[in-house]
Amino acid sequence: MKIVNIASIPGDGVGREVVPEAERVLKAIAELHGGLTFEFTSFPWSCEYYLENGSMMPEDGLEQIKDFDSIFLGAVGNQRLVPDHISLWGLLIKIRREFEQVINVRPAKLIKGINSPLSNPKDFDLLVVRENSEGEYSSIGGRIYNEDEELAIQNAVFSRRGTERAMRYAFELAKTRRGHVTSATKSNGIVYSMPFWDDVFKEISKDYPSVEVDSQHIDALAAFFVTQPERFDVIVASNLFGDILTDIGAAIMGSIGIAPAANININGKYPSMFEPVHGSAPDIIGKGIANPIGQIWTAKMMLDHHGETELGDHLLDSIEEVTSRGIRTPDIGGTSSTTEVTSEIIKTLLR
Amino acid sequence: MKIVNIASIPGDGVGREVVPEAERVLKAIAELHGGLTFEFTSFPWSCEYYLENGSMMPEDGLEQIKDFDSIFLGAVGNQRLVPDHISLWGLLIKIRREFEQVINVRPAKLIKGINSPLSNPKDFDLLVVRENSEGEYSSIGGRIYNEDEELAIQNAVFSRRGTERAMRYAFELAKTRRGHVTSATKSNGIVYSMPFWDDVFKEISKDYPSVEVDSQHIDALAAFFVTQPERFDVIVASNLFGDILTDIGAAIMGSIGIAPAANININGKYPSMFEPVHGSAPDIIGKGIANPIGQIWTAKMMLDHHGETELGDHLLDSIEEVTSRGIRTPDIGGTSSTTEVTSEIIKTLLR
Ligand SMILES: CC(C)[C@H](C(=O)O)[C@@H](O)C(=O)O
Ligand SMILES: CC(C)[C@H](C(=O)O)[C@@H](O)C(=O)O
Repeated sequence: MKIVNIASIPGDGVGREVVPEAERVLKAIAELHGGLTFEFTSFPWSCEYYLENGSMMPEDGLEQIKDFDSIFLGAVGNQRLVPDHISLWGLLIKIRREFEQVINVRPAKLIKGINSPLSNPKDFDLLVVRENSEGEYSSIGGRIYNEDEELAIQNAVFSRRGTERAMRYAFELAKTRRGHVTSATKSNGIVYSMPFWDDVFKEISKDYPSVEVDSQHIDALAAFFVTQPERFDVIVASNLFGDILTDIGAAIMGSIGIAPAANININGKYPSMFEPVHGSAPDIIGKGIANPIGQIWTAKMMLDHHGETELGDHLLDSIEEVTSRGIRTPDIGGTSSTTEVTSEIIKTLLR
Repeated sequence: MKIVNIASIPGDGVGREVVPEAERVLKAIAELHGGLTFEFTSFPWSCEYYLENGSMMPEDGLEQIKDFDSIFLGAVGNQRLVPDHISLWGLLIKIRREFEQVINVRPAKLIKGINSPLSNPKDFDLLVVRENSEGEYSSIGGRIYNEDEELAIQNAVFSRRGTERAMRYAFELAKTRRGHVTSATKSNGIVYSMPFWDDVFKEISKDYPSVEVDSQHIDALAAFFVTQPERFDVIVASNLFGDILTDIGAAIMGSIGIAPAANININGKYPSMFEPVHGSAPDIIGKGIANPIGQIWTAKMMLDHHGETELGDHLLDSIEEVTSRGIRTPDIGGTSSTTEVTSEIIKTLLR
């Protein structure tokens, strides 16, 4: 029996509504497999936890979850309760950094039965590999002077090691797909970090002669995501550029509610973390209409990560079958509830 | 007779094809007006100029154009001849900075007769006010160490003055429009510059109690440009965020070839510069199919700037009439040439 121990952190808002649903799906997957068990241990870390305890997780929080096989996260943040920079840096970004989850992988593909906002979308299927630990999100910087004289400086920090490993990860993935990597740059406007990024890309690409490459400025690339998403296979991007591109990727799929993501630890020292692209969506809490697909597709990425790619593919097929039958939450044009959609996915899986 | 002296810089690639066409349009406008003349003086500064002279403009280039009423620029850059960071920083960005064109204004609206890539676009009409002199494009930073140890650091610099004037400009514009300003932020991930940006926005908004405000993270905002562009009126954004948003704005209009822009000097010490969003498009040079609408719409912004808003509106109406009649270049699904489209616009104007 293969046992996968999962630290489950529903977090805030709709995270609490979709994580249990995705866990139901994973249990069905285990049933289907026969020789696989998921053990979930739930951690209540969230903005409410913060209000009670003064921090987003206990002091030994990381210690508590570091030996799990994976972390399954819902959503973090609720500005009505706690400022974002506190909630996110105290939980989501903290885990990404401390557990050296240096790569963030986010697919975007046209899903049957979900209307894209694009008028005539070709069958796109792309993967953004986002550098997840440094770049524009460095916490180096500060403010000086007051009032009229005030000045804020933020450092973007790009290390050779950080840049290179994100790029190698992208090239390796491209080899298993259509063999193309696009680098997101902005070296025409940002004159130190981005020419460095370009140089590293040029160099790393030499190690992958079978992979085709191109380089696009982030402004043009964002536009191409709207006009020609089908031309991309793997895109490698800095922390900020990856963040922006993947929200556009979610938009062209039809809803931020369906986009999945994986924060990957590549040195094997800590668990990876699986969390959808969407946030806690405070405006729809408690209505039972949160789209569970983002979290469930994220579960598929976790399955893939643990070697169960066949079951992962079967899960994604089941999702597509359910949406094709019109069983959808309101954000993608349906009238079904979170639970109804999940139950249909499970039924389809087990059929 | 009102005489407007224009320094015309066709620049590179299709810039040389569309600037003369837009000048034809401006001459027709002058005819229509009766009491207005445009005097064009052309400057050959470009990548080819660089290859001959070793710089993108003469040493006293800025001196030569500083007393003109406006600068009318085509496109700069041709990587096949000169690296972008040299061509752009030696001409486009140099003029923006040295002439204190601290604001970049770029509209995006649904134009009749041009197919948007969006399936069911509502009638959007938005304006991005982009901070144009500092932020992520500061030329402060550098690289240290070699090979595995290499590190690049790029400083984003946000001054109180720079941030405030961009925001005030946005609020003033909003008062003449639908009274709403959206701030593009990313304070949940970028923890020094963006919380500063938010603080200034909050404070400035107090001076404009009649204007409604909201604040969106750049990732979500980029996605909203695709899913709900109609919800925006004026958006105020940093240099980089404005750059990205306006390319998405161009994409949802149907082509980068139609999007206009103005680089505004607000202290009256130097001329403003009008240049479309598109680049030099080396791949279509010489084919006679460059879309002239971006450059012509940019001419409308120049007209507005010189107080001729009625003629400017008439020009935009004429553009829409021509595209509605199906007279379009290939990038927007037509078969007409650059010259044919321009000639039709002129005919329509004068009718
Ligand atoms: C060419 C480049 C430096 C420029 C910018 O980023 O400002 C362009 O993309 C623009 O938007 O005018
Ligand atoms: C919430 C925020 C800090 C986060 C990020 O920018 O990384 C989110 O947008 C994401 O993409 O996971």
